[in-house]
Amino acid sequence: MPQNIYDDPGFFDGYSRLPRSLHGLHGAPEWEAVRAMLPELRGAHILDLGCGFGAFDRWAAEQGAQQVIGIDLSERMLRRARELAQHPAVEFRIGDMARLDIAERDFDLVYSALAFHYVEDFPGLCRTIRSKLRDAGRLVATVEHPIFSAPRHDEWLERDGRPVWPLDSYLEEGLRTRNWFADGVIKYHRTIGTYVNALVDNGFRLTRLIEWGPDARQIDEHPEWARERDRPPFLLFAAEAIS
Amino acid sequence: MPQNIYDDPGFFDGYSRLPRSLHGLHGAPEWEAVRAMLPELRGAHILDLGCGFGAFDRWAAEQGAQQVIGIDLSERMLRRARELAQHPAVEFRIGDMARLDIAERDFDLVYSALAFHYVEDFPGLCRTIRSKLRDAGRLVATVEHPIFSAPRHDEWLERDGRPVWPLDSYLEEGLRTRNWFADGVIKYHRTIGTYVNALVDNGFRLTRLIEWGPDARQIDEHPEWARERDRPPFLLFAAEAIS
Repeated sequence: MPQNIYDDPGFFDGYSRLPRSLHGLHGAPEWEAVRAMLPELRGAHILDLGCGFGAFDRWAAEQGAQQVIGIDLSERMLRRARELAQHPAVEFRIGDMARLDIAERDFDLVYSALAFHYVEDFPGLCRTIRSKLRDAGRLVATVEHPIFSAPRHDEWLERDGRPVWPLDSYLEEGLRTRNWFADGVIKYHRTIGTYVNALVDNGFRLTRLIEWGPDARQIDEHPEWARERDRPPFLLFAAEAIS
Repeated sequence: MPQNIYDDPGFFDGYSRLPRSLHGLHGAPEWEAVRAMLPELRGAHILDLGCGFGAFDRWAAEQGAQQVIGIDLSERMLRRARELAQHPAVEFRIGDMARLDIAERDFDLVYSALAFHYVEDFPGLCRTIRSKLRDAGRLVATVEHPIFSAPRHDEWLERDGRPVWPLDSYLEEGLRTRNWFADGVIKYHRTIGTYVNALVDNGFRLTRLIEWGPDARQIDEHPEWARERDRPPFLLFAAEAIS
Protein backbone atom coordinates (compact mmCIF):
# COMPACT_ATOMS: atom_id res chain seq x y z
CA MET A 1 0.00 0.00 0.00
CA PRO A 2 1.24 3.51 -0.71
CA GLN A 3 1.70 5.92 2.15
CA ASN A 4 -1.51 7.72 3.03
CA ILE A 5 -0.11 10.66 4.93
CA TYR A 6 -3.30 12.66 4.33
CA ASP A 7 -5.11 10.63 6.98
CA ASP A 8 -2.47 11.54 9.59
CA PRO A 9 -4.30 14.06 11.86
CA GLY A 10 -1.37 16.48 12.15
CA PHE A 11 -0.73 16.42 8.44
CA PHE A 12 -4.41 16.81 7.65
CA ASP A 13 -4.73 19.84 9.92
CA GLY A 14 -1.68 21.53 8.38
CA TYR A 15 -2.68 20.71 4.84
CA SER A 16 -6.22 21.96 5.49
CA ARG A 17 -4.85 25.40 6.35
CA LEU A 18 -2.89 25.83 3.10
CA PRO A 19 -4.24 28.64 0.90
CA ARG A 20 -5.01 26.08 -1.79
CA SER A 21 -7.08 24.08 0.71
CA LEU A 22 -8.88 27.10 2.16
CA HIS A 23 -9.50 28.96 -1.10
CA GLY A 24 -9.72 26.17 -3.68
CA LEU A 25 -8.35 26.72 -7.16
CA HIS A 26 -7.78 30.43 -6.66
CA GLY A 27 -5.63 29.68 -3.64
CA ALA A 28 -3.23 27.86 -6.00
CA PRO A 29 -0.96 30.43 -7.68
CA GLU A 30 -0.32 28.14 -10.69
CA TRP A 31 -4.03 27.73 -11.39
CA GLU A 32 -4.33 30.21 -14.28
CA ALA A 33 -1.45 28.48 -16.08
CA VAL A 34 -3.07 25.08 -15.54
CA ARG A 35 -6.45 26.36 -16.70
CA ALA A 36 -4.89 27.59 -19.97
CA MET A 37 -3.82 23.98 -20.73
CA LEU A 38 -7.30 22.48 -20.31
CA PRO A 39 -9.47 21.39 -23.25
CA GLU A 40 -13.16 22.31 -23.58
CA LEU A 41 -14.95 20.92 -20.53
CA ARG A 42 -18.58 21.30 -21.60
CA GLY A 43 -20.00 17.80 -21.96
CA ALA A 44 -16.66 16.20 -21.01
CA HIS A 45 -16.06 13.03 -19.01
CA ILE A 46 -13.27 13.74 -16.54
CA LEU A 47 -11.20 11.62 -14.19
CA ASP A 48 -9.29 13.45 -11.42
CA LEU A 49 -6.46 11.45 -9.83
CA GLY A 50 -5.65 12.63 -6.30
CA CYS A 51 -8.68 14.91 -6.06
CA GLY A 52 -8.18 15.99 -2.44
CA PHE A 53 -10.99 18.30 -1.35
CA GLY A 54 -12.42 18.24 -4.89
CA ALA A 55 -12.00 21.94 -5.81
CA PHE A 56 -11.21 21.11 -9.43
CA ASP A 57 -14.09 18.66 -9.64
CA ARG A 58 -16.63 21.23 -8.40
CA TRP A 59 -15.28 23.81 -10.83
CA ALA A 60 -15.31 21.37 -13.79
CA ALA A 61 -18.96 20.52 -13.09
CA GLU A 62 -19.77 24.25 -13.06
CA GLN A 63 -18.09 24.52 -16.48
CA GLY A 64 -20.58 21.99 -17.84
CA ALA A 65 -18.67 18.70 -17.56
CA GLN A 66 -21.04 15.78 -17.92
CA GLN A 67 -19.23 13.48 -15.51
CA VAL A 68 -16.40 14.08 -13.04
CA ILE A 69 -14.97 11.20 -11.02
CA GLY A 70 -12.50 12.18 -8.30
CA ILE A 71 -10.23 9.49 -6.86
CA ASP A 72 -8.25 9.83 -3.66
CA LEU A 73 -6.54 7.60 -1.10
CA SER A 74 -7.74 9.57 1.87
CA GLU A 75 -11.15 8.95 3.39
CA ARG A 76 -10.84 12.21 5.38
CA MET A 77 -10.20 14.21 2.23
CA LEU A 78 -13.11 12.58 0.42
CA ARG A 79 -15.47 13.21 3.31
CA ARG A 80 -14.86 16.92 3.01
CA ALA A 81 -14.95 16.77 -0.81
CA ARG A 82 -18.41 15.19 -0.65
CA GLU A 83 -19.66 17.83 1.81
CA LEU A 84 -18.46 20.64 -0.46
CA ALA A 85 -19.58 19.26 -3.84
CA GLN A 86 -23.28 18.60 -4.17
CA HIS A 87 -23.37 18.61 -7.96
CA PRO A 88 -24.99 15.55 -9.61
CA ALA A 89 -22.16 15.32 -12.21
CA VAL A 90 -19.50 14.87 -9.49
CA GLU A 91 -18.68 11.66 -7.71
CA PHE A 92 -15.83 10.81 -5.34
CA ARG A 93 -14.35 7.37 -4.83
CA ILE A 94 -11.63 6.09 -2.57
CA GLY A 95 -8.83 4.45 -4.53
CA ASP A 96 -5.15 4.22 -5.36
CA MET A 97 -4.29 5.76 -8.74
CA ALA A 98 -1.34 3.36 -9.07
CA ARG A 99 -3.78 0.39 -9.04
CA LEU A 100 -6.75 2.13 -10.55
CA ASP A 101 -9.82 -0.05 -10.28
CA ILE A 102 -12.72 1.63 -12.05
CA ALA A 103 -14.94 0.28 -14.81
CA GLU A 104 -15.33 3.58 -16.71
CA ARG A 105 -13.10 4.38 -19.70
CA ASP A 106 -13.03 6.65 -22.75
CA PHE A 107 -12.52 9.75 -20.63
CA ASP A 108 -11.96 13.05 -22.45
CA LEU A 109 -9.62 14.33 -19.75
CA VAL A 110 -7.51 12.90 -16.99
CA TYR A 111 -6.49 15.63 -14.58
CA SER A 112 -4.12 15.47 -11.64
CA ALA A 113 -2.76 18.19 -9.36
CA LEU A 114 0.39 17.62 -7.30
CA ALA A 115 -0.14 13.90 -6.85
CA PHE A 116 2.03 11.97 -9.36
CA HIS A 117 5.17 12.53 -7.28
CA TYR A 118 3.67 10.21 -4.67
CA VAL A 119 3.58 7.38 -7.24
CA GLU A 120 6.68 5.21 -7.61
CA ASP A 121 6.03 3.71 -11.07
CA PHE A 122 5.31 6.60 -13.43
CA PRO A 123 5.54 4.61 -16.70
CA GLY A 124 2.98 2.19 -15.27
CA LEU A 125 0.74 5.11 -14.31
CA CYS A 126 1.01 6.47 -17.88
CA ARG A 127 -0.17 3.12 -19.26
CA THR A 128 -3.09 3.10 -16.84
CA ILE A 129 -4.09 6.65 -17.76
CA ARG A 130 -3.78 5.94 -21.48
CA SER A 131 -6.09 2.94 -21.09
CA LYS A 132 -8.72 5.20 -19.53
CA LEU A 133 -8.60 7.95 -22.21
CA ARG A 134 -10.30 7.96 -25.56
CA ASP A 135 -8.05 8.54 -28.60
CA ALA A 136 -7.13 12.25 -28.67
CA GLY A 137 -8.17 12.55 -25.02
CA ARG A 138 -6.02 14.79 -22.84
CA LEU A 139 -3.88 14.48 -19.77
CA VAL A 140 -3.24 17.70 -17.83
CA ALA A 141 -1.14 17.36 -14.71
CA THR A 142 1.04 19.19 -12.23
CA VAL A 143 3.84 17.77 -10.10
CA GLU A 144 6.51 19.10 -7.82
CA HIS A 145 9.32 20.35 -10.01
CA PRO A 146 12.29 17.97 -9.97
CA ILE A 147 14.61 20.84 -9.05
CA PHE A 148 12.44 21.24 -5.96
CA SER A 149 12.32 17.56 -5.08
CA ALA A 150 15.94 16.62 -5.85
CA PRO A 151 18.15 17.95 -3.02
CA ARG A 152 19.09 16.14 0.16
CA HIS A 153 18.41 19.39 2.05
CA ASP A 154 15.64 21.72 1.02
CA GLU A 155 16.64 24.85 2.94
CA TRP A 156 17.84 27.83 0.90
CA LEU A 157 21.42 28.99 1.28
CA GLU A 158 22.63 32.55 0.86
CA ARG A 159 25.29 33.92 -1.46
CA ASP A 160 26.19 37.59 -1.68
CA GLY A 161 23.01 38.38 0.26
CA ARG A 162 20.75 36.59 -2.20
CA PRO A 163 19.11 33.17 -1.84
CA VAL A 164 20.47 30.22 -3.78
CA TRP A 165 18.88 26.80 -3.94
CA PRO A 166 21.31 24.06 -2.84
CA LEU A 167 20.79 21.66 -5.72
CA ASP A 168 22.28 18.21 -5.62
CA SER A 169 21.32 14.61 -6.46
CA TYR A 170 19.25 15.75 -9.44
CA LEU A 171 19.96 12.59 -11.44
CA GLU A 172 19.50 10.25 -8.46
CA GLU A 173 15.87 9.31 -8.91
CA GLY A 174 13.76 7.64 -6.27
CA LEU A 175 12.57 8.06 -2.73
CA ARG A 176 12.74 11.40 -0.91
CA THR A 177 11.59 11.76 2.67
CA ARG A 178 10.48 15.21 3.78
CA ASN A 179 9.08 16.73 6.92
CA TRP A 180 6.05 18.68 5.70
CA PHE A 181 3.25 19.01 8.29
CA ALA A 182 4.32 15.53 9.42
CA ASP A 183 7.63 13.67 9.69
CA GLY A 184 8.63 11.22 7.00
CA VAL A 185 6.38 12.23 4.13
CA ILE A 186 7.43 9.98 1.23
CA LYS A 187 7.76 11.29 -2.32
CA TYR A 188 9.45 10.09 -5.49
CA HIS A 189 11.91 12.30 -7.31
CA ARG A 190 12.26 11.83 -11.05
CA THR A 191 13.74 14.09 -13.72
CA ILE A 192 11.80 16.06 -16.33
CA GLY A 193 13.30 13.72 -18.93
CA THR A 194 11.82 10.72 -17.14
CA TYR A 195 8.37 12.31 -17.03
CA VAL A 196 8.53 13.23 -20.71
CA ASN A 197 9.92 9.92 -21.97
CA ALA A 198 7.40 7.87 -19.97
CA LEU A 199 4.59 9.82 -21.69
CA VAL A 200 6.18 9.49 -25.15
CA ASP A 201 6.76 5.75 -24.68
CA ASN A 202 3.24 5.00 -23.43
CA GLY A 203 0.86 6.45 -25.97
CA PHE A 204 1.09 10.21 -25.53
CA ARG A 205 2.22 13.21 -27.53
CA LEU A 206 3.51 16.00 -25.29
CA THR A 207 1.75 19.27 -26.13
CA ARG A 208 2.93 21.62 -23.36
CA LEU A 209 5.59 21.70 -20.64
CA ILE A 210 5.62 24.60 -18.18
CA GLU A 211 8.14 25.15 -15.42
CA TRP A 212 5.95 27.36 -13.32
CA GLY A 213 6.95 30.36 -11.24
CA PRO A 214 5.05 33.45 -10.09
CA ASP A 215 4.77 36.39 -12.49
CA ALA A 216 5.53 40.04 -11.72
CA ARG A 217 1.96 40.80 -10.60
CA GLN A 218 1.95 37.86 -8.18
CA ILE A 219 5.31 38.91 -6.75
CA ASP A 220 3.99 42.46 -6.25
CA GLU A 221 1.20 40.96 -4.16
CA HIS A 222 3.42 38.39 -2.42
CA PRO A 223 7.02 39.68 -2.35
CA GLU A 224 8.07 36.55 -0.43
CA TRP A 225 7.39 34.51 -3.58
CA ALA A 226 10.23 36.17 -5.55
CA ARG A 227 12.72 33.39 -4.90
CA GLU A 228 10.33 30.85 -6.46
CA ARG A 229 11.68 32.23 -9.76
CA ASP A 230 15.16 31.10 -8.73
CA ARG A 231 13.91 27.53 -8.38
CA PRO A 232 10.49 26.73 -9.90
CA PRO A 233 8.24 24.85 -7.47
CA PHE A 234 5.93 23.15 -9.99
CA LEU A 235 6.11 21.37 -13.32
CA LEU A 236 2.95 21.48 -15.45
CA PHE A 237 2.36 19.35 -18.51
CA ALA A 238 -0.30 18.52 -21.07
CA ALA A 239 -0.34 15.54 -23.42
CA GLU A 240 -2.65 14.05 -26.00
CA ALA A 241 -3.49 10.35 -26.23
CA ILE A 242 -2.47 9.00 -29.63
CA SER A 243 -3.82 5.85 -31.24
CA MET B 1 26.17 39.62 -35.98
CA PRO B 2 26.34 36.99 -33.25
CA GLN B 3 29.45 36.72 -31.12
CA ASN B 4 32.12 34.57 -32.75
CA ILE B 5 34.25 33.75 -29.75
CA TYR B 6 35.72 30.72 -31.51
CA ASP B 7 37.93 32.98 -33.61
CA ASP B 8 39.42 34.57 -30.47
CA PRO B 9 42.98 33.10 -30.34
CA GLY B 10 42.95 32.44 -26.58
CA PHE B 11 39.53 30.84 -26.74
CA PHE B 12 40.48 28.78 -29.77
CA ASP B 13 43.61 27.45 -28.08
CA GLY B 14 41.73 26.49 -24.92
CA TYR B 15 38.84 24.96 -26.82
CA SER B 16 41.24 23.01 -29.03
CA ARG B 17 42.67 21.27 -25.97
CA LEU B 18 39.32 20.00 -24.67
CA PRO B 19 39.03 16.20 -24.74
CA ARG B 20 36.13 16.51 -27.18
CA SER B 21 38.33 18.59 -29.50
CA LEU B 22 41.37 16.31 -29.23
CA HIS B 23 39.55 12.99 -29.36
CA GLY B 24 36.44 13.77 -31.42
CA LEU B 25 33.16 12.09 -30.59
CA HIS B 26 34.71 9.66 -28.13
CA GLY B 27 36.14 12.58 -26.18
CA ALA B 28 32.54 13.68 -25.50
CA PRO B 29 31.16 11.65 -22.57
CA GLU B 30 27.54 12.14 -23.71
CA TRP B 31 28.26 10.73 -27.17
CA GLU B 32 26.85 7.22 -26.64
CA ALA B 33 23.55 8.72 -25.42
CA VAL B 34 23.43 11.04 -28.43
CA ARG B 35 24.24 8.22 -30.82
CA ALA B 36 21.32 6.18 -29.46
CA MET B 37 18.95 8.98 -30.54
CA LEU B 38 20.13 9.08 -34.16
CA PRO B 39 18.10 7.64 -37.05
CA GLU B 40 19.62 5.39 -39.75
CA LEU B 41 22.40 7.38 -41.42
CA ARG B 42 23.08 5.21 -44.47
CA GLY B 43 22.08 7.22 -47.52
CA ALA B 44 20.95 10.17 -45.36
CA HIS B 45 21.24 13.88 -46.13
CA ILE B 46 22.47 15.61 -42.98
CA LEU B 47 22.85 19.22 -41.91
CA ASP B 48 25.10 19.90 -38.89
CA LEU B 49 24.59 23.31 -37.24
CA GLY B 50 27.67 24.50 -35.37
CA CYS B 51 29.90 21.74 -36.70
CA GLY B 52 33.17 22.92 -35.09
CA PHE B 53 36.03 20.63 -36.09
CA GLY B 54 33.59 18.35 -37.94
CA ALA B 55 34.00 15.17 -35.88
CA PHE B 56 30.35 14.26 -36.24
CA ASP B 57 30.41 14.99 -39.97
CA ARG B 58 33.40 12.70 -40.58
CA TRP B 59 31.76 9.95 -38.54
CA ALA B 60 28.39 10.33 -40.33
CA ALA B 61 30.12 10.00 -43.71
CA GLU B 62 31.82 6.82 -42.49
CA GLN B 63 28.37 5.49 -41.53
CA GLY B 64 27.29 5.86 -45.13
CA ALA B 65 25.57 9.25 -45.17
CA GLN B 66 25.12 10.46 -48.72
CA GLN B 67 25.61 14.16 -47.96
CA VAL B 68 26.79 15.98 -44.84
CA ILE B 69 26.86 19.77 -44.75
CA GLY B 70 28.55 21.31 -41.70
CA ILE B 71 27.87 24.97 -40.91
CA ASP B 72 29.91 27.06 -38.50
CA LEU B 73 30.57 30.72 -37.75
CA SER B 74 34.29 30.26 -37.25
CA GLU B 75 36.68 30.26 -40.17
CA ARG B 76 39.43 28.86 -37.92
CA MET B 77 37.26 25.93 -36.89
CA LEU B 78 36.28 25.20 -40.49
CA ARG B 79 39.89 25.32 -41.67
CA ARG B 80 40.75 22.50 -39.31
CA ALA B 81 37.50 20.64 -40.12
CA ARG B 82 38.43 20.69 -43.80
CA GLU B 83 41.95 19.42 -43.08
CA LEU B 84 40.58 16.53 -41.03
CA ALA B 85 37.70 15.46 -43.29
CA GLN B 86 38.65 14.42 -46.78
CA HIS B 87 35.48 12.48 -47.51
CA PRO B 88 33.62 13.43 -50.72
CA ALA B 89 30.23 13.33 -48.95
CA VAL B 90 31.29 16.03 -46.44
CA GLU B 91 31.29 19.75 -47.07
CA PHE B 92 31.87 22.66 -44.70
CA ARG B 93 30.45 26.15 -45.11
CA ILE B 94 30.79 29.29 -43.07
CA GLY B 95 27.45 30.59 -41.89
CA ASP B 96 25.21 31.69 -39.04
CA MET B 97 22.57 29.10 -38.16
CA ALA B 98 20.27 31.89 -36.96
CA ARG B 99 20.16 33.31 -40.50
CA LEU B 100 20.68 30.12 -42.39
CA ASP B 101 21.34 30.80 -46.04
CA ILE B 102 21.60 27.52 -47.93
CA ALA B 103 19.65 26.34 -50.97
CA GLU B 104 19.43 22.66 -49.95
CA ARG B 105 16.32 21.36 -48.19
CA ASP B 106 14.52 18.05 -47.48
CA PHE B 107 17.27 16.91 -45.12
CA ASP B 108 16.71 13.63 -43.27
CA LEU B 109 18.52 14.86 -40.17
CA VAL B 110 19.50 18.16 -38.64
CA TYR B 111 22.12 17.63 -35.96
CA SER B 112 23.61 20.13 -33.54
CA ALA B 113 25.97 19.67 -30.61
CA LEU B 114 26.26 22.32 -27.88
CA ALA B 115 25.49 25.26 -30.16
CA PHE B 116 21.82 26.26 -29.76
CA HIS B 117 22.53 28.04 -26.47
CA TYR B 118 24.48 30.64 -28.46
CA VAL B 119 21.31 31.49 -30.42
CA GLU B 120 18.97 34.12 -28.98
CA ASP B 121 15.78 33.29 -30.90
CA PHE B 122 15.12 29.58 -30.44
CA PRO B 123 11.54 29.53 -31.83
CA GLY B 124 12.88 31.22 -34.98
CA LEU B 125 15.63 28.61 -35.21
CA CYS B 126 13.01 25.84 -34.90
CA ARG B 127 11.08 27.31 -37.85
CA THR B 128 14.28 27.49 -39.91
CA ILE B 129 15.20 23.90 -39.09
CA ARG B 130 11.67 22.65 -39.82
CA SER B 131 11.83 24.35 -43.25
CA LYS B 132 15.02 22.41 -44.04
CA LEU B 133 13.71 18.97 -43.00
CA ARG B 134 11.57 16.60 -45.02
CA ASP B 135 8.34 15.42 -43.35
CA ALA B 136 9.28 12.84 -40.69
CA GLY B 137 12.86 14.10 -40.78
CA ARG B 138 14.66 14.24 -37.43
CA LEU B 139 16.29 16.84 -35.26
CA VAL B 140 18.86 15.56 -32.75
CA ALA B 141 20.53 18.19 -30.60
CA THR B 142 22.43 18.82 -27.41
CA VAL B 143 22.59 22.04 -25.39
CA GLU B 144 23.95 23.15 -22.08
CA HIS B 145 21.45 22.08 -19.45
CA PRO B 146 19.43 25.04 -18.16
CA ILE B 147 20.33 24.13 -14.59
CA PHE B 148 23.94 24.60 -15.66
CA SER B 149 23.39 27.88 -17.50
CA ALA B 150 20.97 29.53 -15.06
CA PRO B 151 22.95 30.73 -12.03
CA ARG B 152 24.60 34.11 -11.60
CA HIS B 153 27.65 32.30 -10.18
CA ASP B 154 28.74 28.94 -11.50
CA GLU B 155 31.09 27.85 -8.73
CA TRP B 156 30.00 24.95 -6.55
CA LEU B 157 29.31 25.54 -2.86
CA GLU B 158 29.77 22.99 -0.12
CA ARG B 159 27.26 21.71 2.42
CA ASP B 160 28.09 19.07 5.01
CA GLY B 161 31.27 18.29 3.07
CA ARG B 162 29.44 17.61 -0.18
CA PRO B 163 29.14 19.84 -3.25
CA VAL B 164 25.88 21.66 -3.93
CA TRP B 165 25.11 23.66 -7.05
CA PRO B 166 24.08 27.25 -6.21
CA LEU B 167 20.98 27.45 -8.37
CA ASP B 168 19.22 30.75 -8.86
CA SER B 169 17.58 32.75 -11.66
CA TYR B 170 16.30 29.60 -13.33
CA LEU B 171 13.17 31.29 -14.70
CA GLU B 172 15.03 34.47 -15.76
CA GLU B 173 15.74 33.66 -19.38
CA GLY B 174 18.19 35.52 -21.55
CA LEU B 175 21.80 36.53 -21.70
CA ARG B 176 24.47 34.93 -19.55
CA THR B 177 28.09 36.05 -19.71
CA ARG B 178 30.73 33.52 -18.70
CA ASN B 179 34.49 33.41 -18.56
CA TRP B 180 35.37 30.15 -20.33
CA PHE B 181 38.77 30.20 -22.09
CA ALA B 182 38.04 33.90 -22.78
CA ASP B 183 36.29 36.68 -20.87
CA GLY B 184 32.73 37.58 -21.76
CA VAL B 185 31.55 34.51 -23.64
CA ILE B 186 27.87 35.16 -24.39
CA LYS B 187 25.23 32.47 -24.04
CA TYR B 188 21.45 32.42 -23.79
CA HIS B 189 19.76 30.69 -20.91
CA ARG B 190 16.31 29.27 -21.49
CA THR B 191 14.28 26.68 -19.57
CA ILE B 192 13.56 23.12 -20.66
CA GLY B 193 9.92 24.16 -21.04
CA THR B 194 10.92 26.87 -23.50
CA TYR B 195 12.97 24.42 -25.58
CA VAL B 196 10.13 21.88 -25.62
CA ASN B 197 7.30 24.33 -26.35
CA ALA B 198 9.24 26.01 -29.17
CA LEU B 199 9.61 22.60 -30.83
CA VAL B 200 5.95 21.66 -30.28
CA ASP B 201 4.75 25.03 -31.61
CA ASN B 202 6.93 24.95 -34.74
CA GLY B 203 6.25 21.67 -36.45
CA PHE B 204 7.91 19.05 -34.26
CA ARG B 205 6.88 16.10 -32.12
CA LEU B 206 9.27 15.54 -29.24
CA THR B 207 10.45 11.92 -29.19
CA ARG B 208 13.18 11.93 -26.51
CA LEU B 209 14.45 14.25 -23.76
CA ILE B 210 17.57 13.26 -21.82
CA GLU B 211 19.10 15.15 -18.94
CA TRP B 212 22.55 13.70 -19.30
CA GLY B 213 25.01 12.80 -16.57
CA PRO B 214 27.85 10.27 -16.39
CA ASP B 215 27.02 6.67 -15.53
CA ALA B 216 28.69 4.49 -12.89
CA ARG B 217 31.31 3.17 -15.31
CA GLN B 218 32.30 6.67 -16.40
CA ILE B 219 32.56 7.83 -12.77
CA ASP B 220 34.78 4.83 -12.01
CA GLU B 221 37.12 6.04 -14.77
CA HIS B 222 36.76 9.75 -13.88
CA PRO B 223 35.86 10.09 -10.19
CA GLU B 224 35.92 13.90 -10.57
CA TRP B 225 32.79 13.65 -12.72
CA ALA B 226 30.64 12.38 -9.84
CA ARG B 227 29.17 15.79 -9.06
CA GLU B 228 27.86 16.08 -12.61
CA ARG B 229 25.06 13.82 -11.36
CA ASP B 230 24.14 16.50 -8.83
CA ARG B 231 23.61 18.99 -11.65
CA PRO B 232 23.41 17.61 -15.21
CA PRO B 233 25.65 19.49 -17.64
CA PHE B 234 23.82 18.69 -20.88
CA LEU B 235 20.29 18.43 -22.21
CA LEU B 236 19.80 16.11 -25.20
CA PHE B 237 16.66 15.99 -27.30
CA ALA B 238 15.26 14.34 -30.41
CA ALA B 239 12.22 15.46 -32.38
CA GLU B 240 10.39 14.45 -35.53
CA ALA B 241 9.19 16.91 -38.16
CA ILE B 242 5.42 16.60 -38.57
CA SER B 243 3.44 17.71 -41.60
